[in-house]
Amino acid sequence: MTQTTRQILKISCPDQKGLIAGTTQVLAKAGANILDLTQHTATDIDTFFLRAMFECPVDSLSNIKIHIEELGKRCAMDWDLHDANQKPKLALFGSKTDHCLYELFLGQRDGDLACEFVCLISNHVALEPVARQFNIPFFLVSSTQSKAEQEARFRDILAGSGAEALVLARYMQILSPEFTREWDRKVINIHHGFLPAFKGAKPYHQAWAKGVKLIGATAHFATEDLDQGPIIWQSVQQVPDTCSIERFIQIGKEVEKRTLAIALRYWIDHRVFVYQGRTFIL
Amino acid sequence: MTQTTRQILKISCPDQKGLIAGTTQVLAKAGANILDLTQHTATDIDTFFLRAMFECPVDSLSNIKIHIEELGKRCAMDWDLHDANQKPKLALFGSKTDHCLYELFLGQRDGDLACEFVCLISNHVALEPVARQFNIPFFLVSSTQSKAEQEARFRDILAGSGAEALVLARYMQILSPEFTREWDRKVINIHHGFLPAFKGAKPYHQAWAKGVKLIGATAHFATEDLDQGPIIWQSVQQVPDTCSIERFIQIGKEVEKRTLAIALRYWIDHRVFVYQGRTFIL
Amino acid sequence: MTQTTRQILKISCPDQKGLIAGTTQVLAKAGANILDLTQHTATDIDTFFLRAMFECPVDSLSNIKIHIEELGKRCAMDWDLHDANQKPKLALFGSKTDHCLYELFLGQRDGDLACEFVCLISNHVALEPVARQFNIPFFLVSSTQSKAEQEARFRDILAGSGAEALVLARYMQILSPEFTREWDRKVINIHHGFLPAFKGAKPYHQAWAKGVKLIGATAHFATEDLDQGPIIWQSVQQVPDTCSIERFIQIGKEVEKRTLAIALRYWIDHRVFVYQGRTFIL
Amino acid sequence: MTQTTRQILKISCPDQKGLIAGTTQVLAKAGANILDLTQHTATDIDTFFLRAMFECPVDSLSNIKIHIEELGKRCAMDWDLHDANQKPKLALFGSKTDHCLYELFLGQRDGDLACEFVCLISNHVALEPVARQFNIPFFLVSSTQSKAEQEARFRDILAGSGAEALVLARYMQILSPEFTREWDRKVINIHHGFLPAFKGAKPYHQAWAKGVKLIGATAHFATEDLDQGPIIWQSVQQVPDTCSIERFIQIGKEVEKRTLAIALRYWIDHRVFVYQGRTFIL
Repeated sequence: MTQTTRQILKISCPDQKGLIAGTTQVLAKAGANILDLTQHTATDIDTFFLRAMFECPVDSLSNIKIHIEELGKRCAMDWDLHDANQKPKLALFGSKTDHCLYELFLGQRDGDLACEFVCLISNHVALEPVARQFNIPFFLVSSTQSKAEQEARFRDILAGSGAEALVLARYMQILSPEFTREWDRKVINIHHGFLPAFKGAKPYHQAWAKGVKLIGATAHFATEDLDQGPIIWQSVQQVPDTCSIERFIQIGKEVEKRTLAIALRYWIDHRVFVYQGRTFIL
Repeated sequence: MTQTTRQILKISCPDQKGLIAGTTQVLAKAGANILDLTQHTATDIDTFFLRAMFECPVDSLSNIKIHIEELGKRCAMDWDLHDANQKPKLALFGSKTDHCLYELFLGQRDGDLACEFVCLISNHVALEPVARQFNIPFFLVSSTQSKAEQEARFRDILAGSGAEALVLARYMQILSPEFTREWDRKVINIHHGFLPAFKGAKPYHQAWAKGVKLIGATAHFATEDLDQGPIIWQSVQQVPDTCSIERFIQIGKEVEKRTLAIALRYWIDHRVFVYQGRTFIL
Repeated sequence: MTQTTRQILKISCPDQKGLIAGTTQVLAKAGANILDLTQHTATDIDTFFLRAMFECPVDSLSNIKIHIEELGKRCAMDWDLHDANQKPKLALFGSKTDHCLYELFLGQRDGDLACEFVCLISNHVALEPVARQFNIPFFLVSSTQSKAEQEARFRDILAGSGAEALVLARYMQILSPEFTREWDRKVINIHHGFLPAFKGAKPYHQAWAKGVKLIGATAHFATEDLDQGPIIWQSVQQVPDTCSIERFIQIGKEVEKRTLAIALRYWIDHRVFVYQGRTFIL
Repeated sequence: MTQTTRQILKISCPDQKGLIAGTTQVLAKAGANILDLTQHTATDIDTFFLRAMFECPVDSLSNIKIHIEELGKRCAMDWDLHDANQKPKLALFGSKTDHCLYELFLGQRDGDLACEFVCLISNHVALEPVARQFNIPFFLVSSTQSKAEQEARFRDILAGSGAEALVLARYMQILSPEFTREWDRKVINIHHGFLPAFKGAKPYHQAWAKGVKLIGATAHFATEDLDQGPIIWQSVQQVPDTCSIERFIQIGKEVEKRTLAIALRYWIDHRVFVYQGRTFIL
């Protein structure tokens, strides 16, 4: 019996006629069965986005790639194909708090997040026990060193662990523009504010002083512009007026961890398309 | 210049390979451009669902129909094609309260609900002013008559107004099984409870006595089994413990009108697929 | 039999011991029965807030006022007493869109908003029909005149109608600092953005360009600083990525009208305390 | 300097005049300062509920108790007084899944849940590692024994650990009526369904088959009637139609743990009043 594989195809390109027909014909001819396909044309930017999950015989895969490659050239497609069962390798960056880490580690352990966490880098030893407990290699990189020294260390660790993308799980440090560019669209950050409000430091204190009635968190790709990268997901939670700032932060932690886990899940499922500072989740 | 038309194609059928390729090739050959396509295979019931919105030259439409018809026969497709700019004609049934009616009439007037309300049938004169204000023909059909007499009258009115589907906007009366069957999958009801909890009469009083912390509303297709038809949309709202039953009902009205409007919008956009007592919203 | 009256007492003052005991003793001695009392001390600003709804004999009311007055002087209380059954007189300001107006007029008509709308002032005739339909006096004050002329006209209309507070239901014009100061803490505005993000003009366009995943609305007191006054209530709604800007605005309308109605309800119920640029809702 | 203590007073009784005045005078005379007081009279059942958090000198506490006792007798009060800084001792019951346990253990560790978990009882060894990691005594009580044997063992463990209340964190077993009565209003259960819908076994499968668009969880006091006890808190989450039952359950886990943590927090804060099968959260 032929072995089958489950794949996810992502395409974005200038819109034109026949793109779905062309693409799905390639798949059909290769004996693939599409299980979930979402296509959206953003008419204001005349751009076509497609995500298709399909099953096909393993030995037809190289053929599919060749024909999509051809089609892609003709249509100026930005495309990639992912093995749905191959778990992406993610490096985590943390600082002192571990609520996001537990959410991600438990989600990963239970199969809700189909990824592999290959290392946890932190500027504090506080996170070592949680890493050890989930058998994640832990690396202390003190932020007392120069940023250049720290990032040289990061590069070593990331290369050694085979990380494909980074998750900043309340890392609280700013990465250099060079480093950020090296991992362009591959650094997911959780900001504890409802962006674009409350950028920068101490967003909960800002929000509390402003007297907002809802607090939020925003998962986004980190870019050179602090807290300005493309938003992946946002959630909010109502806060009572009688909250202390401490309680405010507690409620926020809930929102942060949930928002980060949702955003990461979309990314793992290959649902996130970035286009000109925005994302489209298909 | 050729005139174009915007169409929505809905397909459901047993799953098999090549369905999207086959379908989109028909569209591509006819010069259509797909703007939004969502396909989902419900693997537990091995069923394929597809919704595609596309633009094509008006004169290619008959060709598309012929080829989809052929494909449909081969693949046991349940399919239909809708002109996206042709507004469905809806008949409304009400009783005394008008909060849902205002929501729908204003949504329709502002273009948020792309439909036409062809008549309002009510068992009370209380709703006549709101109908007149929005220029909707109003018909009083008293519920003191026998159900058979009332429904005979309904049939006349509906035939006369060209209604394609019915919306029960807090109608509070039960339609006969015969009548419901005549409009199978074409009667949208709003139930003021979070089904399947709180079926039947006075759901708010049931919920209040039970001490629930959230109240909800459910828009569903009416079937012969009271409040058991396929659910289209549901929403809930938190209720404080200090609520009186009167306030409870006020909060509920908000949830009802919003839920009904959302469900109706999905239906108008041809997003609702019914399969074995459930709906799939694509 | 003695006639009873239902009253709402609001107090804010520097915190100290015995404030509730002193206050409730006055009420108890006058034969009042408290039905709902909420007290909160904001410990960070050392400030006491109390709202009490009570029933008492009509003829004990003057006595209550005398004793609360005495207590208030001793404790530097900012206090006021409201007849719960006396509906506040509100003036509405609108421009062209009527979704908020319908929400408020229907809420008022159904008893959900226990207020009286004494006039609707607009810079466009478009709103005249909705005003007429609900029997609200309509005044056209064109914004082609100078702001001084317009506001002179506003003063006349408001004096003539006996308005106690103003609601800006998507008025879209900026009131002068002088006028705003005259109605300090008595102008409720609905801003169609999740403040403090998206201040100023075209907040939906700002939000859409930014690629946010939730849109919001903020009801707040208007102050001299545009869109900076104390926030009363905020709500958000998830928006799909496939939204056009038009659909975005439609979804926003829902959020706006609901948020404004909730904020207004809190205000009518005498639940809103303003303190140093923030509100406390008790 | 006199030492102060923070206390929480809860009262429920038949409504009558002067209850707040009488109570707060006792506190004022003892030199207490009230920080948060909420009072509500449920007029339909003519019942008075009050929660007050106050600070007072430690040596005035016995005096306060004596006078509240007197007042309580006169007014048929059901009252209790809690040291706000004394953490209640809770026993946990689990089975195989640990998502609720992590939520509670981490919340407790971070100070969000001001309680002490004195033991974890489970019918499976799977939970031992999580207990050990948070230094919670773990007891395996196999459900292969008779219920009487198991519950005899429970009584020993609970007596030994000094547990004041029980939390069923997805325990999946039914306690006997006798045992439940012994811990009347002291057993908090999380049910993975939006009660009163989906009682009993496999609520997610029930909900999924029914095609609901929201799934929920309900935290409630366990009583002899399975899944019928007074509801403490409920939450829901939207579920997409394209969900598999596995994904449905994953989403549900999020809702469960959050709902249980919120309910437990209310209970720990002494905010939960039970009255005739309902709760009031003040």
